Amino acid sequence: MQLGFVSAILPDLSLEEVASFASAEGFECVELMCWPVGKAERRYAGVTHVDVDGFDPAAAAEVRQTMADAGVTISGLGYYPNILSPDKAEADTCRTHLKKVIAAAALLGVDVVNTFIGRDWHTSVDDNWPRFEAVWPDLVRFAEDHGVRIGIENCPMLFGADEWPGGKNLAGTPAIWRRMFEAIPSAAFGLNYDPSHLVWQGIDCIAPLKAFADRLFHVHAKDVRVDRDRLNDVGVLATPLEYHCPKLPGLGEVDWGRFFSVLGDVGYTGAVCVEVEDRCYEGSLAGRKAALTQSARYLRNYVPTMES
Amino acid sequence: MQLGFVSAILPDLSLEEVASFASAEGFECVELMCWPVGKAERRYAGVTHVDVDGFDPAAAAEVRQTMADAGVTISGLGYYPNILSPDKAEADTCRTHLKKVIAAAALLGVDVVNTFIGRDWHTSVDDNWPRFEAVWPDLVRFAEDHGVRIGIENCPMLFGADEWPGGKNLAGTPAIWRRMFEAIPSAAFGLNYDPSHLVWQGIDCIAPLKAFADRLFHVHAKDVRVDRDRLNDVGVLATPLEYHCPKLPGLGEVDWGRFFSVLGDVGYTGAVCVEVEDRCYEGSLAGRKAALTQSARYLRNYVPTMES
Amino acid sequence: MQLGFVSAILPDLSLEEVASFASAEGFECVELMCWPVGKAERRYAGVTHVDVDGFDPAAAAEVRQTMADAGVTISGLGYYPNILSPDKAEADTCRTHLKKVIAAAALLGVDVVNTFIGRDWHTSVDDNWPRFEAVWPDLVRFAEDHGVRIGIENCPMLFGADEWPGGKNLAGTPAIWRRMFEAIPSAAFGLNYDPSHLVWQGIDCIAPLKAFADRLFHVHAKDVRVDRDRLNDVGVLATPLEYHCPKLPGLGEVDWGRFFSVLGDVGYTGAVCVEVEDRCYEGSLAGRKAALTQSARYLRNYVPTMES
Amino acid sequence: MQLGFVSAILPDLSLEEVASFASAEGFECVELMCWPVGKAERRYAGVTHVDVDGFDPAAAAEVRQTMADAGVTISGLGYYPNILSPDKAEADTCRTHLKKVIAAAALLGVDVVNTFIGRDWHTSVDDNWPRFEAVWPDLVRFAEDHGVRIGIENCPMLFGADEWPGGKNLAGTPAIWRRMFEAIPSAAFGLNYDPSHLVWQGIDCIAPLKAFADRLFHVHAKDVRVDRDRLNDVGVLATPLEYHCPKLPGLGEVDWGRFFSVLGDVGYTGAVCVEVEDRCYEGSLAGRKAALTQSARYLRNYVPTMES
Amino acid sequence: MQLGFVSAILPDLSLEEVASFASAEGFECVELMCWPVGKAERRYAGVTHVDVDGFDPAAAAEVRQTMADAGVTISGLGYYPNILSPDKAEADTCRTHLKKVIAAAALLGVDVVNTFIGRDWHTSVDDNWPRFEAVWPDLVRFAEDHGVRIGIENCPMLFGADEWPGGKNLAGTPAIWRRMFEAIPSAAFGLNYDPSHLVWQGIDCIAPLKAFADRLFHVHAKDVRVDRDRLNDVGVLATPLEYHCPKLPGLGEVDWGRFFSVLGDVGYTGAVCVEVEDRCYEGSLAGRKAALTQSARYLRNYVPTMES
Amino acid sequence: MQLGFVSAILPDLSLEEVASFASAEGFECVELMCWPVGKAERRYAGVTHVDVDGFDPAAAAEVRQTMADAGVTISGLGYYPNILSPDKAEADTCRTHLKKVIAAAALLGVDVVNTFIGRDWHTSVDDNWPRFEAVWPDLVRFAEDHGVRIGIENCPMLFGADEWPGGKNLAGTPAIWRRMFEAIPSAAFGLNYDPSHLVWQGIDCIAPLKAFADRLFHVHAKDVRVDRDRLNDVGVLATPLEYHCPKLPGLGEVDWGRFFSVLGDVGYTGAVCVEVEDRCYEGSLAGRKAALTQSARYLRNYVPTMES
Repeated sequence: MQLGFVSAILPDLSLEEVASFASAEGFECVELMCWPVGKAERRYAGVTHVDVDGFDPAAAAEVRQTMADAGVTISGLGYYPNILSPDKAEADTCRTHLKKVIAAAALLGVDVVNTFIGRDWHTSVDDNWPRFEAVWPDLVRFAEDHGVRIGIENCPMLFGADEWPGGKNLAGTPAIWRRMFEAIPSAAFGLNYDPSHLVWQGIDCIAPLKAFADRLFHVHAKDVRVDRDRLNDVGVLATPLEYHCPKLPGLGEVDWGRFFSVLGDVGYTGAVCVEVEDRCYEGSLAGRKAALTQSARYLRNYVPTMES
Repeated sequence: MQLGFVSAILPDLSLEEVASFASAEGFECVELMCWPVGKAERRYAGVTHVDVDGFDPAAAAEVRQTMADAGVTISGLGYYPNILSPDKAEADTCRTHLKKVIAAAALLGVDVVNTFIGRDWHTSVDDNWPRFEAVWPDLVRFAEDHGVRIGIENCPMLFGADEWPGGKNLAGTPAIWRRMFEAIPSAAFGLNYDPSHLVWQGIDCIAPLKAFADRLFHVHAKDVRVDRDRLNDVGVLATPLEYHCPKLPGLGEVDWGRFFSVLGDVGYTGAVCVEVEDRCYEGSLAGRKAALTQSARYLRNYVPTMES
Repeated sequence: MQLGFVSAILPDLSLEEVASFASAEGFECVELMCWPVGKAERRYAGVTHVDVDGFDPAAAAEVRQTMADAGVTISGLGYYPNILSPDKAEADTCRTHLKKVIAAAALLGVDVVNTFIGRDWHTSVDDNWPRFEAVWPDLVRFAEDHGVRIGIENCPMLFGADEWPGGKNLAGTPAIWRRMFEAIPSAAFGLNYDPSHLVWQGIDCIAPLKAFADRLFHVHAKDVRVDRDRLNDVGVLATPLEYHCPKLPGLGEVDWGRFFSVLGDVGYTGAVCVEVEDRCYEGSLAGRKAALTQSARYLRNYVPTMES
Repeated sequence: MQLGFVSAILPDLSLEEVASFASAEGFECVELMCWPVGKAERRYAGVTHVDVDGFDPAAAAEVRQTMADAGVTISGLGYYPNILSPDKAEADTCRTHLKKVIAAAALLGVDVVNTFIGRDWHTSVDDNWPRFEAVWPDLVRFAEDHGVRIGIENCPMLFGADEWPGGKNLAGTPAIWRRMFEAIPSAAFGLNYDPSHLVWQGIDCIAPLKAFADRLFHVHAKDVRVDRDRLNDVGVLATPLEYHCPKLPGLGEVDWGRFFSVLGDVGYTGAVCVEVEDRCYEGSLAGRKAALTQSARYLRNYVPTMES
Repeated sequence: MQLGFVSAILPDLSLEEVASFASAEGFECVELMCWPVGKAERRYAGVTHVDVDGFDPAAAAEVRQTMADAGVTISGLGYYPNILSPDKAEADTCRTHLKKVIAAAALLGVDVVNTFIGRDWHTSVDDNWPRFEAVWPDLVRFAEDHGVRIGIENCPMLFGADEWPGGKNLAGTPAIWRRMFEAIPSAAFGLNYDPSHLVWQGIDCIAPLKAFADRLFHVHAKDVRVDRDRLNDVGVLATPLEYHCPKLPGLGEVDWGRFFSVLGDVGYTGAVCVEVEDRCYEGSLAGRKAALTQSARYLRNYVPTMES
Repeated sequence: MQLGFVSAILPDLSLEEVASFASAEGFECVELMCWPVGKAERRYAGVTHVDVDGFDPAAAAEVRQTMADAGVTISGLGYYPNILSPDKAEADTCRTHLKKVIAAAALLGVDVVNTFIGRDWHTSVDDNWPRFEAVWPDLVRFAEDHGVRIGIENCPMLFGADEWPGGKNLAGTPAIWRRMFEAIPSAAFGLNYDPSHLVWQGIDCIAPLKAFADRLFHVHAKDVRVDRDRLNDVGVLATPLEYHCPKLPGLGEVDWGRFFSVLGDVGYTGAVCVEVEDRCYEGSLAGRKAALTQSARYLRNYVPTMES
């Protein structure tokens, strides 16, 4: 395994600075954000460490050189929009951009692009399904054609009232993953596995590592604390942030020792990228850097410092 | 406390037969269903053991005599429609009928009418709130004027796709109860407390007995089993029946010993009515009767056979 | 479901007395022991309430009449020898007798015969397998031909040094059951499910009810207490009775509420027979009767008194 | 085992009425209170069902006849004063009366007298010890001489501010029991074992059944609920009633199934007497009777109806 | 947050050496002990790293310079006597000295002084209360006047027979804190929060972080191991060291991940000082230094290395 | 305590390289493998970092110099054959070689030799006992004569079918240790304590630290993960590797914080050597080194960096 981080937490740093920070702190890789240049649509979105618009071999060479200079690899490219947005124009734009990210990954020799399935959050999973089946086979084929794999992050994208009730990403549960992989049985279609989203859904976050071992394309290390006093007041029908909060690894309920114990045993040898979404650490660049440093220090209890 | 049952599970029996069965099985009371005569709109609804249409002192005397003959009291009248239904006509009809139930309770000398707040299940709690505040003060005042108390059952009325996402009753959680009682601070406005609905919501089902001790007007004894294997597959964002099922007391996760231990200590001396919604027992009248008998046998481990 | 008991605990009573006791105590059925008349080879074995030697329609009619007079049904016939004993003569004798029990069941109109697979306890499961595959298909076919189903009790028959290391019955675990049912995929080949044996093996004793729902032909209600202080001293490699002891239902670690909750939901409507192997109650006939009465009283918290 | 109750909860009934109630409710025995006639010094004290002042063979014969007529045995005589009270006159009076109770037991053919060690609650266990060693050997010898055994109830007698900090009975913990039995190694000196007092002290209430099997002379069945919300506020240094309350069996935290499972296996065949100290049931004679009836109903899940 | 330590564990080092060690080991701050010069009255007391007798601006400047040279801040001044000692002369001396510590803090620009409320350990909390109310308002006002806040450590100061039964510090539980802050509602009166003391009292050591968020002036990181085998023998009425022992963070029962998770989320940004009271590490200066180094290494899993 | 590792995991390194690696990674000691030069008989066996054949003072001096140069001590010599093998020739060879290891330890000034008791795995503990009593007293006396202590590792040596059913080392449980130490009550006969083997046997792996405090000669830090899904399928009668796997410290179920907390408190000040048997890390020398480095990083959370 290689320990890395998701670059979205460092929007104020250039790619070079991101790579340099990663290297200095002992990270072996980084997932680079590839949002279109412009304004973020939500927290943690809108970061552009690789601008895939007009990306060409020369641009790719430059990015590769920057990373090579720092001795840090690219674990994947990341772009997490709502590709099934009920706003069709938005959905089209996102789909078009995702293809650019995939093409850029091919140019960079990066074999994973991480994203969401998307969802019209006003309607049920079943009601969204025809659209999923209409949109996604083409995207997966596009990725296959470019020798790139798509890692779907398993976040329901349901936090507060804005995404209620369904959230903006269908791929939230093992039941839905099975349905996805049955619908599109491509070896290029898998998961960017983040255990934290399973915890607050009441789902064992370790058992799926066995069941979906061959779909683990990328891993996010994020944690989550469920506040029982809050849950006792509002219950699981509340919007999720009413009873839980995302935290750094070690500050939540994921049993990371067991997580890495099983992750290793199912044969995973890929990247594990810290994703920081802990409000306590987000007040300043220094704080966000400290969050990454602390997370790495904690995770190194369970992750080797070199390839095993 | 008095042990009783909710008459909805015996739709095929007349009031006299219900009373006679209750007496024979050692129940001290019954919550009598008062749906308008006609077709049930959903499972467990549509049962009429007291027809409140045109209810008058003579009808009341007859009902009272029937119950007195059996030596069984009426713990409350029950009618559980969707008073805040988005179908305004339906909502009006329900509201009108609820008032008849309240008036009938007054005539019967029964001091509790059990019902739901209702909800437009397509929208959020906040979006429903103005309507709650428009509709309910008048109903509570009507009850006060008749010397009757309203016990709101704390069921979210969210089971499957039909009630998704919000369910058909606002009163699902302690947080919402507080908001309700702050909005309408009447001593005639309280709870028909059913612990089972809290269990699958992840809410401690015993702690609220202390916090809402003075709002406990009536109690339903129903249990619920959460299936962890299902929950691990579909998570708490699924429709609730995908991961839990209602069961008889003792066949679920409510700790009834502790429940009655605390219920007694907070000073509750009212009725506890078994509510049967366990599919295993619903195939025949004999099965439904057996469900009541078994439930009583189980609960008598924790409930005295006479007033304490 | 029907509540009954295994007649082995009442060796001093005649069939008529067994039926009469069952009736008086409210049991709906009995599993009748059918050992060859003679000396018991081990505790709880060697009891003959139905002598299947020379069993004919007249004998069957008499047994049926006795049971009918008491208003008690026969849940199954029971005979639990070691059909794969390394002592080939013993094994042959057992096999021959088992066929008589099956034939007797057919004559009695009883559709389940309960027994063990047997095992050469000196050797591994794998080493026993060829013999299982040689012996059992014929027995199952014989049962099919008689319209009788065979319920294999899932007891490893490993208690002390005499049965060490392998125990005298192969059918101890879900993994082995699957293997059995794959080897002999007959609808007449299933389980006489006893949760207690799974508890001390560290196996969830409720989950298999779902996985093997269609193989549940008969159920034994026995419980078991694991003594952690003993286990902490001798560990799971010790002979099992060093760290656990069989107990009446309610005096052990089986969660009977959950057990019956799931058992009902998977559609089981057959017999549940108390099997008494609790040394505390075995000192006298009165004690053994009291054990059955207490067990029934306890189980009736979870089992209805009439067919549901 | 025989199921009975402690007569202190029925002060308003005569001995004959107590025996008659016991018989009607299926109890096999009663522990009869033998306080001196007069005013109770504390709740549950001061009850006199056998007046041992001037007790003679005639009086004994009358008591025995009363019990025999009801078909109920005397499990023990009970008198629970503070024999080590710092008020020496009180202590002397108590000691004198205890001897009368012992003598009465001998006359009645009852082999157990239940009581407390007593304690000067202002001082530590160590500071009380010399007085224990001065007073008790004589009392135990007196019992031996009368063929009677003394069962010390293991209640610290620390509930509120009045008994703070030490409580009025030394015999609260296994560590102290060992010390007691080492100091006075008489076979007539043992325990009247009540698991409830161990629960709130944080002591496993079942393990001592094995360690002190030969000291179990009598058993009280009382339960206790620890309120975690209160404990979280006041901690274990508070007076105990600030965070727990005594309850009927089944309404507290004792695992009665396991309790009786082990109690039987260590060879206990004596009396188990329900001791009611549950405020919820104490408001009326009817309530107190109902408490006994409910307790028996609950405990019969685990206790046979006849000698095993 | 800043990680530091309590200087009491390094009595053999001068202030300069303490600061230098802190700096070398990466601690950001130190709580400096300010006992009067002289003999320690108990373990961990009597250490003087800042001598506040005759403390003046020059002395303050010198201390500040020493710390600044090492790049380490002063998290607070510490002095933990028994200000409510029944020995009035001792109490007066302590009170006078505490004021000197407060005045010294003002001169040093340190805004927290940590101490105990004190207690006459022979009597109850209620009996101590009048004296608390007589003594403490003046001290708090004195602190307010000097722009200094007082952090009361929440240790009951009850370990063995010498402090039995009440302990030497009233401020042991949330219930008492509320009472304290209601009696003296000053913003300068708060807590030096140490979770370890809550653990053995059976109190949730994390929940109060939310309830008393605005009273968290300083935090001690100490851990505690409760030995269940000992507790099972002596119970919670024993003197506390009979069943628990103080340990380094990570060697006890505090869930430090959750502790820091919540501590951050309630907005705490102050000092967290390791307090070493682990006998295993106290045999030598090297051992005590190693204890601090190990504690820091452990805690850095959860604490960032720079201000967040 | 001193942190070290078992050299068996680095068979490709010379003694000098082992010492140098230990030093570079901050280990304070190493347990050196002393198998006879030749082919390994099983995984992790057959490693020779000290060749004790023909070992003389000169060879000893060379080894000591190598270690001294690296600043690393020898925690013990290790040789783990089956001294009670049913193959008598093998057993004799092993016994002879063990004596050479003991003699070498004496020459090296190393006071612990670690090994197994051995066992004929086909037969029971009782059946092996006479041979244990015949063989071991002489070996222990030999060690005593050389001033060396023997640390028996508590591994049952039962993993798969080859060692079924008994395993190749008698010393698997506390019950057997007591029996061993009663049979050979020498102060030179103790344990090389490895908590991991107790975990999958269902034995508390921390409690024995107290009970066998004076027998703790050496400690192995290895962890183990029990897979409940596997256990639920195969049960504890399966061969152990069917339901558990050995893992690095922190990746299993040992509570290392509590382990070291108690280990320190019982007075252990010896070596704790990481033993790597985690398949995930064994694919390359780099991986195996990384395993040691990760283990040390993890354990240093609980182990001081210098003698305490």
